[in-house]
Amino acid sequence: MPVRTIDWRSDEIVIIDQTALPAEERVLYLRTVDELVDAIRRLAVRGAMALGVAGALGVALAACRAEEEHVDVTKAAKDAAERLIKARPTAVNLSWGAKRVAALAAGGRQAMVAEATRVLEEDVRANRAIGERGAAILEGRRRILTHCNAGALAGTEWGTALSIVRVLHERGGISEVFVGETRPLLQGSRLTAWELGRMGVPHRVIVDGAGPGLILTGRVDAVVVGADRIALNGDVANKIGTVAHALAARRAGIPFIVAAPESTLDPDTATGAAIDIEERDPNEVLCIGGVRIAPERSSALNLAFDVTPVDLVTAIVTESRVIYPGTDPILTRP
Amino acid sequence: MPVRTIDWRSDEIVIIDQTALPAEERVLYLRTVDELVDAIRRLAVRGAMALGVAGALGVALAACRAEEEHVDVTKAAKDAAERLIKARPTAVNLSWGAKRVAALAAGGRQAMVAEATRVLEEDVRANRAIGERGAAILEGRRRILTHCNAGALAGTEWGTALSIVRVLHERGGISEVFVGETRPLLQGSRLTAWELGRMGVPHRVIVDGAGPGLILTGRVDAVVVGADRIALNGDVANKIGTVAHALAARRAGIPFIVAAPESTLDPDTATGAAIDIEERDPNEVLCIGGVRIAPERSSALNLAFDVTPVDLVTAIVTESRVIYPGTDPILTRP
Repeated sequence: MPVRTIDWRSDEIVIIDQTALPAEERVLYLRTVDELVDAIRRLAVRGAMALGVAGALGVALAACRAEEEHVDVTKAAKDAAERLIKARPTAVNLSWGAKRVAALAAGGRQAMVAEATRVLEEDVRANRAIGERGAAILEGRRRILTHCNAGALAGTEWGTALSIVRVLHERGGISEVFVGETRPLLQGSRLTAWELGRMGVPHRVIVDGAGPGLILTGRVDAVVVGADRIALNGDVANKIGTVAHALAARRAGIPFIVAAPESTLDPDTATGAAIDIEERDPNEVLCIGGVRIAPERSSALNLAFDVTPVDLVTAIVTESRVIYPGTDPILTRP
Repeated sequence: MPVRTIDWRSDEIVIIDQTALPAEERVLYLRTVDELVDAIRRLAVRGAMALGVAGALGVALAACRAEEEHVDVTKAAKDAAERLIKARPTAVNLSWGAKRVAALAAGGRQAMVAEATRVLEEDVRANRAIGERGAAILEGRRRILTHCNAGALAGTEWGTALSIVRVLHERGGISEVFVGETRPLLQGSRLTAWELGRMGVPHRVIVDGAGPGLILTGRVDAVVVGADRIALNGDVANKIGTVAHALAARRAGIPFIVAAPESTLDPDTATGAAIDIEERDPNEVLCIGGVRIAPERSSALNLAFDVTPVDLVTAIVTESRVIYPGTDPILTRP
């Protein structure tokens, strides 16, 4: 990758515009919170870990601009945090990153920039740690299924689910990865397939409905996905389509592994039932590539996430531990 | 509908080209088995019941052309049956229809045309009977989820799963139908949504991954789908993505109903494990609307069907009975 998925340079946020992939590697330089909110909304930057970093850097960005314009830095930082959190309400990391930096608002621009870049560097280290921990529990499982994109593009450098795949692959342990295309925005076929290709990992894209059938017919050894939010009881909100794979994995007796940083565990959410599921523009479903597919008088329900109940989750792998929900029912941050 | 989905007029097969819907209602007049095989392969005509009729009419078509060209009618009919069966190997009805008419090959063109048009008329009556039987067992279930297209376009006039929806709707019993878009070829968002719109049934299209989440959160009262082939033990082959809904329905405790004509029950298939799953062109997954989505070096696995194990099936509704697999384990034709 020419640059990190998200980075901080000369008081600006630098991102790879993920809406342009895989056709084009377009780099965006964001100078204002407005530009960042827009990038988050249209998924130019996405994925749990990258959004955590975006939330943190976004507040620092607001502080830099406020100082340049001689307006109240503390107020600008707090306002920015609020606006960023609303940009994607299900993404707990976004909120976590923004709040962590905004908590230092009284310390001024310098304190906030230092904290935001600390979030960034911690994320780089956490990505690799998740890969190592996950690979340790999946040794010998050669055929992996993943959904959506929980790769480098969803993190800062390595990602979560794909960091596990990457470590397994480096050890010669992968024979094939099945990639759910992930409608409506096709993060699987556009982003995950692109990352796996760059890593040299054998892979095939499948439609989202195909995973459960492959799992039930013994063609998959483990399912590994990311998470957008994990409730205290272990329920997991992740990209729409995830829970179908968990149901199939349970029936087939293969592991269903959730890879996510500790910041995805939300201490304010008791169970999955309390998670606010983002409803997106129906046109993402009704149209493909700008062309209307469904009849003009039909509408769509476009939920961005579903919730996998904790009893279907084999393990949650974070940068600091492996949680087996069956034996560790209450999740608390260490 | 201006014409039936598939019909027989003046020794020709008349079909609605389903690849042009919903943008255009294009009618095709097929004069040769080559033209029909091509129409089947590119899914211009599809769906279990319509394919049964297509198989029957296709053999009659071959007999008509052979007689006109003064070649061996019996041989032409038998050759046509073989070629038609190979056009879509998973579709048992196609094979059933072709064999039923080819069995009368010794009787000449007239006998075969009479039998083929009898298959057509029986299908029209069977469609309505399935609707009545299914509606009787789903009374009071107002929110229905369906996948792919098992509607009028998959039958001759009414369809199977959508025939049930139609009867429920005529009785004021439907509040909403969720329609899985059904990647890769989008039969749900293109065809089922179009049919429901014409019937005036409230509906919303969802991506294929969304159904299980909706079911698990209590937003669906019953799942109703068609079938491409049903094994003797009750295992059901249907469009890829079906089994995920069956898994979710079981967990949520709602009915998972399979609507299919008796001709879908395959006496030559003991269990789902014996069903040959058609693998289609990977480009259907890698490209959308002719535009490449996935990276150039990525490939795809494009399975057309999955198998729902019989223990997840609440009931199989045919034109002549309702089969509860738990209490009626061996399926035989009545």
